[in-house]
Amino acid sequence: MPAANDMPLTPLGFLARAAEIHPDKTAVVDGESRIGYGALWLRVRRLASALVAAGVSPGDRVAVLAPNSGAMIEAHFGVPLAGAVLTAINLRLEPASVAFILRHSGARLLIVDGDCSALALAALSQLEVRPTVIEAAERPSMGAPSYEAFLAAGNPDFAGRWPDNEREPIALNYTSGTTGDPKGAVYTHRGAYLNALGNIINFGLDPATVYLWTLPMFHCNGWTFPWAVTAVGGTHICVRRFDANRVLALIAEHQVSHLCGAPVILNMLAEAARRDSVHFGHPVRIATGGAPPPSAVIAAMAAIGCQITHLYGLTETYGPATLCLPQSDWSTLSKEQRAQRMARQGVRHVAMGGLKVIDPVKRSELPCDGESVGEILLRGNTIMDGYFDNPDATAAAFRDGWFNTGDLAVRHPDGYVEIKDRSKDIIISGGENISSIEIEEVLYRHPAVLEAAVVARPDPRWGETPCAFVRLRDDAAPTSAADLIAWCRQHLAGFKVPKTVLFGDLPKTATGKIQKFLLRAQANAPE
Amino acid sequence: MPAANDMPLTPLGFLARAAEIHPDKTAVVDGESRIGYGALWLRVRRLASALVAAGVSPGDRVAVLAPNSGAMIEAHFGVPLAGAVLTAINLRLEPASVAFILRHSGARLLIVDGDCSALALAALSQLEVRPTVIEAAERPSMGAPSYEAFLAAGNPDFAGRWPDNEREPIALNYTSGTTGDPKGAVYTHRGAYLNALGNIINFGLDPATVYLWTLPMFHCNGWTFPWAVTAVGGTHICVRRFDANRVLALIAEHQVSHLCGAPVILNMLAEAARRDSVHFGHPVRIATGGAPPPSAVIAAMAAIGCQITHLYGLTETYGPATLCLPQSDWSTLSKEQRAQRMARQGVRHVAMGGLKVIDPVKRSELPCDGESVGEILLRGNTIMDGYFDNPDATAAAFRDGWFNTGDLAVRHPDGYVEIKDRSKDIIISGGENISSIEIEEVLYRHPAVLEAAVVARPDPRWGETPCAFVRLRDDAAPTSAADLIAWCRQHLAGFKVPKTVLFGDLPKTATGKIQKFLLRAQANAPE
Repeated sequence: MPAANDMPLTPLGFLARAAEIHPDKTAVVDGESRIGYGALWLRVRRLASALVAAGVSPGDRVAVLAPNSGAMIEAHFGVPLAGAVLTAINLRLEPASVAFILRHSGARLLIVDGDCSALALAALSQLEVRPTVIEAAERPSMGAPSYEAFLAAGNPDFAGRWPDNEREPIALNYTSGTTGDPKGAVYTHRGAYLNALGNIINFGLDPATVYLWTLPMFHCNGWTFPWAVTAVGGTHICVRRFDANRVLALIAEHQVSHLCGAPVILNMLAEAARRDSVHFGHPVRIATGGAPPPSAVIAAMAAIGCQITHLYGLTETYGPATLCLPQSDWSTLSKEQRAQRMARQGVRHVAMGGLKVIDPVKRSELPCDGESVGEILLRGNTIMDGYFDNPDATAAAFRDGWFNTGDLAVRHPDGYVEIKDRSKDIIISGGENISSIEIEEVLYRHPAVLEAAVVARPDPRWGETPCAFVRLRDDAAPTSAADLIAWCRQHLAGFKVPKTVLFGDLPKTATGKIQKFLLRAQANAPE
Repeated sequence: MPAANDMPLTPLGFLARAAEIHPDKTAVVDGESRIGYGALWLRVRRLASALVAAGVSPGDRVAVLAPNSGAMIEAHFGVPLAGAVLTAINLRLEPASVAFILRHSGARLLIVDGDCSALALAALSQLEVRPTVIEAAERPSMGAPSYEAFLAAGNPDFAGRWPDNEREPIALNYTSGTTGDPKGAVYTHRGAYLNALGNIINFGLDPATVYLWTLPMFHCNGWTFPWAVTAVGGTHICVRRFDANRVLALIAEHQVSHLCGAPVILNMLAEAARRDSVHFGHPVRIATGGAPPPSAVIAAMAAIGCQITHLYGLTETYGPATLCLPQSDWSTLSKEQRAQRMARQGVRHVAMGGLKVIDPVKRSELPCDGESVGEILLRGNTIMDGYFDNPDATAAAFRDGWFNTGDLAVRHPDGYVEIKDRSKDIIISGGENISSIEIEEVLYRHPAVLEAAVVARPDPRWGETPCAFVRLRDDAAPTSAADLIAWCRQHLAGFKVPKTVLFGDLPKTATGKIQKFLLRAQANAPE
């Protein structure tokens, strides 16, 4: 029994409380299906007990390959209620990456949504040891037990395996980092609880909240919003596949009050709204991140009744670490000046303990002058526990008692940070992180390629796209940009394929290191 | 250095962050004085360093006797930043109780506001060992060093003694309990942090919040609002002495968005507003507690543009433990039905871990039938650490792994609790807790009194007032109600003096215990 005055912090209590207070209120809308908090809690307890019955032990990883859906919400509570660690996998990855994550995490069980069965089968075929598979689909096609039958055999009165210690892991989220291999960021019950409370406060959630799921829940556990929205007893509206017109219709139909999405999503929404002259009769708050929202997008969203909050964070920070909190005097600025301010990554949120920008060489804190570029360092309870089974990467990330983000920024005199570059060469395209090194490795495997370097290129639609610079072998057979793009398409997920391939010598330092900053300048130059 | 991903939870970080993000924004308004968050943080660091220089060691208690004021806000941060424990004392107590608290807490230092110097001198004169005294007054009269000089000698760059462990004490709050001697509830950094975040979420605080201090900060550290309002970077408006007309003027002048107060305070506000036909042009949210708000008060507040949130809690629960969260279908109820619902104590807030109502004898959970009366039990991280230097009272309060509130309630089918009685015989008058036993002890000391029992009597203005039942000695000199009231006035603070004294035999059980429930029925009966 926990002490009367000291209980482990855990998001599990959010659902138990919502079921107690709002048993009949709609918790989740997924297509035609609707479920109240009382019934959701019973399904989650069935799921947890079924996982335990299937042999899932405390600390085991349970993977999920699913779009935003009722089952995905249930997994965010049911998996930890079984004492297990939720590993939600990006369904846009290629089978080899999915297989890597299943192998590296050692997932004991995999829940697959019907929309992801082909990807799951392809990934599973590459594994020597396969997890137990459960398929959540109206018409199962994988030959695996069905999710509904699995739940039906579970016990709705299961008390659950609640964490004894709030620092136990709740989730494992794989990110592409400086190397091609994904790294698994471990989230704890404590961190998830605190980040969820921080999100409620950042984003003004309350019991009247109707939250639309455009942000994938497999990204940093949807920035911890599955837990945050449940904590206030709000309603989750699931969107399985983004379609701007469908989303606009859902916003109106359900009186959606809040949603999160990358700027590219906002751009498509604004475009569709402009086409159909949509204006919402109620206020809609939108949080965006992954890239700064362009001023045109902010203006377009405001025109249809939306208010933008700009968040910044990483997989390692449970999603949001900072927010661009509007200052009262910004209302006196011109529209352009205000949009410039709003494009900044801003200040740490209430649950993040510290932020500084340091000289990458001297490691000393830089002045808030808006000019000195350095690395953003963060610390606090909403920083991951570490990378799973990867002590070297963990030690490198936690240098000097701070989490080293690898993002390069200036800090303005008002203390707001603004990212200038990414030292880890991550390309962010349509909200997805792409490792340039992973693409380079594929290019290097092509018989005609001598050298390859990939950098981000600004793109009005996707934010950034990969731009490859290639030097061919002198004796190579004739090779075109289209040939290399086709080659990449064979070996990489579609969103990782370079949109541009340029040929020539690659600039190098005296020690032979490719000077990416020069390539970046070239990629940024107007054609 | 704290770990990158694990920092002790503490409200101290709220002020450090507000100073970073909102350095020029008004933090505190106290009369004509205004201070921004940047300057407040420097004064708090000065205060902490001056306390350390004055010999305050980690864990020492620092007492404050002050109305709502800038110095009181500063003490909420500066005392814990010195590693010490804030002991804010109720300035409505009589000198003997203040002396008891100073003695029992072993306060090393006492900060006295000029408005409380007479009370402080009277209390200090009863002490064998006296704390160092600092006087915060424009015209000091105690012969003690002045608060401003004390701060001026402090170091504004002091880094502070941050807690190594979030379970270290931050505050000590004395409450009257079942016995006449106050008990000191110990608050931790962790509990204060979590309750403050819970309050932000309960009460919808955000950076635009302007919070008016009618609730005394010496009550449960103002229900943790000094920390909560600072966490969002809101503005504190201090009210040193409640005056309805002045408060109405301040609400309009500062566009106050939030305030807390006992129903008696709301009643006076509504009365004054009605007299002067006040209606606020902006929404004002009011949280009330200590007693259920009468429906007439709810209606009167709504009429002038205020929205009521009903909270319930105890000193032992950092103030609010539950809130009467409105359900969406309440909007279809009649005004009377809605007011009845809003008078319930409601459901646990997001940071409170558990609530149940148990049979006081069998100790088993009672059904949610709206009829079975039992004791409210609570547990979670926002329950006090224990009673200071009082292991017996602590053990009694923490029986069976829950905090035993002593409050008797029913639980309705919707899970909402409604208090029916107080097993500890506390009388709540104008938001102040009064121990009936303390009054009885004074009455018993009168030469003419044979037996005395005090119960609460409903009062339209004060919520409750003490009603004394007395059996005089057969040989007593003629003694009137007025005589006994005058006697009590000599020995008790004004608010504790019985408003009614009734003479006669006292009903008793077979074992000789006075049957207070019968007296209560008599006191409740219309005259």
